[in-house]
Amino acid sequence: MGMVGGGRGAFIGGVHRIAAAIDQQIELVCGAFSSNPEKSRLSGEDFYLPTDRVYGSYEEMILKEKELPLGERMDFISIVTPNHVHFGPAKMALENGFHVVCDKPVTFNVDEAEILVKLVEETGLIFALTHNYTGYPMVKQARNMVKNGRIGKVRKIVVEYPQGWLATKVEDTDQKQASWRTDPAKSGMGGAMGDIGTHAENLAEYITDLKITEVCAELTSFVEGRRLDDDANILLRFEEGARGVLHCSQIAVGEENGLNIRVWGETGGLEWHQMRPNTLIVKQLEGPNVHYRTGVGNLSDAANHAQRIPAGHPEGYLEAFANIYKNVAACIQHRLAGTQPTKLERDFPNVKDGLRGMRFVEKVVENSRGTEKWTKL
Amino acid sequence: MGMVGGGRGAFIGGVHRIAAAIDQQIELVCGAFSSNPEKSRLSGEDFYLPTDRVYGSYEEMILKEKELPLGERMDFISIVTPNHVHFGPAKMALENGFHVVCDKPVTFNVDEAEILVKLVEETGLIFALTHNYTGYPMVKQARNMVKNGRIGKVRKIVVEYPQGWLATKVEDTDQKQASWRTDPAKSGMGGAMGDIGTHAENLAEYITDLKITEVCAELTSFVEGRRLDDDANILLRFEEGARGVLHCSQIAVGEENGLNIRVWGETGGLEWHQMRPNTLIVKQLEGPNVHYRTGVGNLSDAANHAQRIPAGHPEGYLEAFANIYKNVAACIQHRLAGTQPTKLERDFPNVKDGLRGMRFVEKVVENSRGTEKWTKL
Amino acid sequence: MGMVGGGRGAFIGGVHRIAAAIDQQIELVCGAFSSNPEKSRLSGEDFYLPTDRVYGSYEEMILKEKELPLGERMDFISIVTPNHVHFGPAKMALENGFHVVCDKPVTFNVDEAEILVKLVEETGLIFALTHNYTGYPMVKQARNMVKNGRIGKVRKIVVEYPQGWLATKVEDTDQKQASWRTDPAKSGMGGAMGDIGTHAENLAEYITDLKITEVCAELTSFVEGRRLDDDANILLRFEEGARGVLHCSQIAVGEENGLNIRVWGETGGLEWHQMRPNTLIVKQLEGPNVHYRTGVGNLSDAANHAQRIPAGHPEGYLEAFANIYKNVAACIQHRLAGTQPTKLERDFPNVKDGLRGMRFVEKVVENSRGTEKWTKL
Amino acid sequence: MGMVGGGRGAFIGGVHRIAAAIDQQIELVCGAFSSNPEKSRLSGEDFYLPTDRVYGSYEEMILKEKELPLGERMDFISIVTPNHVHFGPAKMALENGFHVVCDKPVTFNVDEAEILVKLVEETGLIFALTHNYTGYPMVKQARNMVKNGRIGKVRKIVVEYPQGWLATKVEDTDQKQASWRTDPAKSGMGGAMGDIGTHAENLAEYITDLKITEVCAELTSFVEGRRLDDDANILLRFEEGARGVLHCSQIAVGEENGLNIRVWGETGGLEWHQMRPNTLIVKQLEGPNVHYRTGVGNLSDAANHAQRIPAGHPEGYLEAFANIYKNVAACIQHRLAGTQPTKLERDFPNVKDGLRGMRFVEKVVENSRGTEKWTKL
Repeated sequence: MGMVGGGRGAFIGGVHRIAAAIDQQIELVCGAFSSNPEKSRLSGEDFYLPTDRVYGSYEEMILKEKELPLGERMDFISIVTPNHVHFGPAKMALENGFHVVCDKPVTFNVDEAEILVKLVEETGLIFALTHNYTGYPMVKQARNMVKNGRIGKVRKIVVEYPQGWLATKVEDTDQKQASWRTDPAKSGMGGAMGDIGTHAENLAEYITDLKITEVCAELTSFVEGRRLDDDANILLRFEEGARGVLHCSQIAVGEENGLNIRVWGETGGLEWHQMRPNTLIVKQLEGPNVHYRTGVGNLSDAANHAQRIPAGHPEGYLEAFANIYKNVAACIQHRLAGTQPTKLERDFPNVKDGLRGMRFVEKVVENSRGTEKWTKL
Repeated sequence: MGMVGGGRGAFIGGVHRIAAAIDQQIELVCGAFSSNPEKSRLSGEDFYLPTDRVYGSYEEMILKEKELPLGERMDFISIVTPNHVHFGPAKMALENGFHVVCDKPVTFNVDEAEILVKLVEETGLIFALTHNYTGYPMVKQARNMVKNGRIGKVRKIVVEYPQGWLATKVEDTDQKQASWRTDPAKSGMGGAMGDIGTHAENLAEYITDLKITEVCAELTSFVEGRRLDDDANILLRFEEGARGVLHCSQIAVGEENGLNIRVWGETGGLEWHQMRPNTLIVKQLEGPNVHYRTGVGNLSDAANHAQRIPAGHPEGYLEAFANIYKNVAACIQHRLAGTQPTKLERDFPNVKDGLRGMRFVEKVVENSRGTEKWTKL
Repeated sequence: MGMVGGGRGAFIGGVHRIAAAIDQQIELVCGAFSSNPEKSRLSGEDFYLPTDRVYGSYEEMILKEKELPLGERMDFISIVTPNHVHFGPAKMALENGFHVVCDKPVTFNVDEAEILVKLVEETGLIFALTHNYTGYPMVKQARNMVKNGRIGKVRKIVVEYPQGWLATKVEDTDQKQASWRTDPAKSGMGGAMGDIGTHAENLAEYITDLKITEVCAELTSFVEGRRLDDDANILLRFEEGARGVLHCSQIAVGEENGLNIRVWGETGGLEWHQMRPNTLIVKQLEGPNVHYRTGVGNLSDAANHAQRIPAGHPEGYLEAFANIYKNVAACIQHRLAGTQPTKLERDFPNVKDGLRGMRFVEKVVENSRGTEKWTKL
Repeated sequence: MGMVGGGRGAFIGGVHRIAAAIDQQIELVCGAFSSNPEKSRLSGEDFYLPTDRVYGSYEEMILKEKELPLGERMDFISIVTPNHVHFGPAKMALENGFHVVCDKPVTFNVDEAEILVKLVEETGLIFALTHNYTGYPMVKQARNMVKNGRIGKVRKIVVEYPQGWLATKVEDTDQKQASWRTDPAKSGMGGAMGDIGTHAENLAEYITDLKITEVCAELTSFVEGRRLDDDANILLRFEEGARGVLHCSQIAVGEENGLNIRVWGETGGLEWHQMRPNTLIVKQLEGPNVHYRTGVGNLSDAANHAQRIPAGHPEGYLEAFANIYKNVAACIQHRLAGTQPTKLERDFPNVKDGLRGMRFVEKVVENSRGTEKWTKL
């Protein structure tokens, strides 16, 4: 693995490195950790990399690594930069034969995402997008239950993602995470929408296997002077007549990272909360609520494949994140070995999910600014 | 107290009788418990009433009771019939000098509600509407905290009311509660909206003291053949720039009576769940969430006035309901004594709250049927 | 109902009056509300009683009421005084033909309890002891499930009752509730043990239908100068080889009224918490935990008989308390009518449960003071 | 790191490897993964080790690694075998200059533990014992709060560890984990006591910094034919007059891994549950319960040092486990660099904690078998 971004002071880069390390199948072999070459070099030292594998730019990394013999050179790049620096390295990596793991949202805008989709199709390379919340075992269990008819035809979906960390104008302080996320030049047209709204959209579609077809939205920038939305309330229409609500916020004071989803079908319901990730509540037409738990031994293969330890030993965010890397590693190993990955191993978000996310943000912003009630996706 | 409706087989009538009995300030002295005189008579026996105080119709009751001497005759009527039979007895009671406690929604439509508002103003009589959820101590605590600036200027409100009991076509079975609630001729233009949506609207406005100014709604009848909405998803705009979401459902399989509300302001947040009513979660910009509890001794006068027993002894739905009757009884006692009720005693929903609820339903239905994005209230 | 104790400033008297009122089958017709006749008189006014039914002492009340014609005189007395004033009115009431409802613990010591047991046997009168926590629907459901083999042969029972209200020397302030409870002359030999330990013991035996056979205890008085235990940790042996732990405390800072119980058998487990009383968690050898809820419709007759409103409408402490009064009222009505109460109607704690509680306290105190490891009950 | 045990089919070995990998400071360089050399060899392949670093026995590993140059040879061994195979490799590693990380309980019996304590003192080598639950940030926060007087002088401690996985005779099936844990020849004198009771003991002493001074215990083997205890109920006396209860079980049907602790002092209380590890509930004499959360930014240095990601991103069991490895790695790096570890880096359980655990088990077993009420530690 070669990393783009994630040098000293970054947040999500460290998460990717831990996630890649957990299952001991992936080694960080090189990186272009910062657009500042000195910072990149120092970061390389932090990770015990030889100096000649620490590069001053992703361009340099891709070209130099390509010259190394197979088996020695990086197998894929991991892109952990702000949104506006996803497209460049992703495109160049694909064009030079490297697989890609990319943080979300996939690109800065829809056009870029469409180019990447095409490139992935043409090259046949692996492209994983870290919509990490779908990596949780109980999310996979939920998807599996919906698919198996456990709750009947889906009627209603409520997905929420409240956070509170941008309730004040943090971007005016020294907070690096806040400053690029609230800057349209770096984040794209969505603020909270791009940062967390896409996670919520992806989660809802992943679990139900239903696409959102229309949106009716109100985006707000509550904090004075903020240039992007920090709050979103959206009515959703899904395929097959399902209806829904998505609301997310970064001004919900006191909320940590409260992604959660409820799905109700004709004969049952499901409820999952990211902050209590090892429990899935299953609701029934007749009879009491049932609390499914990771590790207990009555779960689907998809859930079992995504957990490492027995019941009652909580797995969390990093393990869910690692599930993407684990599957990417397995798929790359299969490529190298000339074998086929299983369906479970191929289960990670990809470039098309990325494109859907970009379109979702675009349409939500468009609807919110306009007067028409429903905007089609 | 004289009761209209609530005979054998009814649900909410029994709740009203318990609520009235709890604080031992109100006596059931007469009733017209059913439009079926025989059923009314039998119900009167159940409640140990003398036969001459059990009437065949509310008209008879009001006229006969009026002839009894003060002190002996009923002081007020309690109307616990389906929606389409609220207006008649309420109007006649007011016209004949009786105070009124009326179940919600206040009337069948907006016009009727407006007439009642006028009548109450003209007569000066007491009119209480049993939006009982505002009777919970922690709801009063929440209102008090918002008023005192504990969470700063309100930004976002999410109020939910999921139920699952109408997920199948229960109205085709023998279920009396389901059949009138899904019948437009008895329920009015709102199904879930009238039955529980108005509770949610009332709760949000009560706690925040902000009026809803615009709605953008999607109502759905998920159950085939059902004539009224059984599900509603609504974007809300409130006074002073606050934004919100209200969703309620009667097809949310496995949900019991999940009314809950979250309010976020500039400096804090509040969270309350009807099914865990004795806890109010308070969120802060800096610092951990704080779980306020009834009976603990650090609450507002409004909350303390609404509870009866010390911390850790759960009070529930009936006690919250009783808080309305308790205050009505106190206000009537003050009238009789020529004294003034305190602010705490005057704290119960009234006919104007009822009118707001009717308008809310009307506008939500109108918006849901039309193509305009926002409909003003 | 005639009440002994419960005048102005009392706590549990008010609870009894509400509990008796809830189901509208019981009327407070007289009382000796205080050993202070003036206080008794004023309390009588609070409850709208005629002055000639407000008595200066329980002796006077019992004798005078006995002279009134049947139908007019009280049917039973309700004793809500501190522990040392239970025996007197209970004995005299029984001797004069009145049924008794008595607050717990039943008497001041074992000797008194034995006399009452004998008197009840001789007179055949009804004697209900308000171990109110067994009045909760989900406690009855738990008992029913154990009886029906849902969890197999019982192996382990953990019952807890943490409170924090006596963590400081409250009895030195004006707190009436604290002062008699910590006074050996009024409370008996147990402090926390008598006040709440007996509730825990009663709950464990009620649910499992197993008697405690041996105890090994450590009682502590943590607050300096306190004369009775304010904390107890006890190992338990039950019939049929079950083992257990009971701990209760009144110095557990921040705890409200945290009575809870867990029972594990060979094939399942049960968990119930008084502060979330409408949920019973059922555990299984294979398969997930199941959360049974009041009102949902899949409960035992015993649970259904003890609830009044549908799912999601929380019933609490007062309703559970009222279940004792409801059953007492039903049993008295049957006596008057010459009919037989059902098994469900006869389900309330009685004088023998009271005696067991007194013996339990006695043996726990004895064991705690001595050096022998196990003391037989 | 060189590993002893943890080959194919093992459980805790995999946990150690993940824990060591998470922070990317430790590399698995060699191992003797099984007493079966072929199994060891295959396991080595699983971990991508060169064949000459995969050994047939721990003796061979220690001797061969010792011959390798510093910097290339392993820095420490990680012992993940069943209890009866802790002492041998630990002793030999210490005698040959290798640091040790050892799974708990530290040895088979007290004598072995005493020898190790002496050896560690003599050699000055690092010895970490993986009482991993003290690695959780909120456990460190709790310890810190007790130390800083947040709850005043400690009065009462209740620590529990219910599990249900041994509720039936699993050891008669093919379950490797169950079979050695229930075998006195491999597990030592304690069954549940050694496996999980020591975790509970360690947690209580770690948080409160009070030593247990006396125990009064009842151990039971509920499952017929089981040779070691599968359930324990223990009264505890601590230094400075604190009192407590410890109960643990492996027959508590439906319980996963429910380690939890409550501590009450003179002015406050603390509550922590391993299955909801990112929350610490703090209780106060006056005022509501406060829910402290990881990542929120108001925690102690000790807690902050033990977490990796922001609020709302759950960290779990593996991360807590990794905190021990992280600190061990830091301490070894300091040794190599000739610098001093900070107090935070030195914070992990050591060989003396191991000895305490062994003594605790010994005394509990002794007390349970005897007739004396209290046994001194």
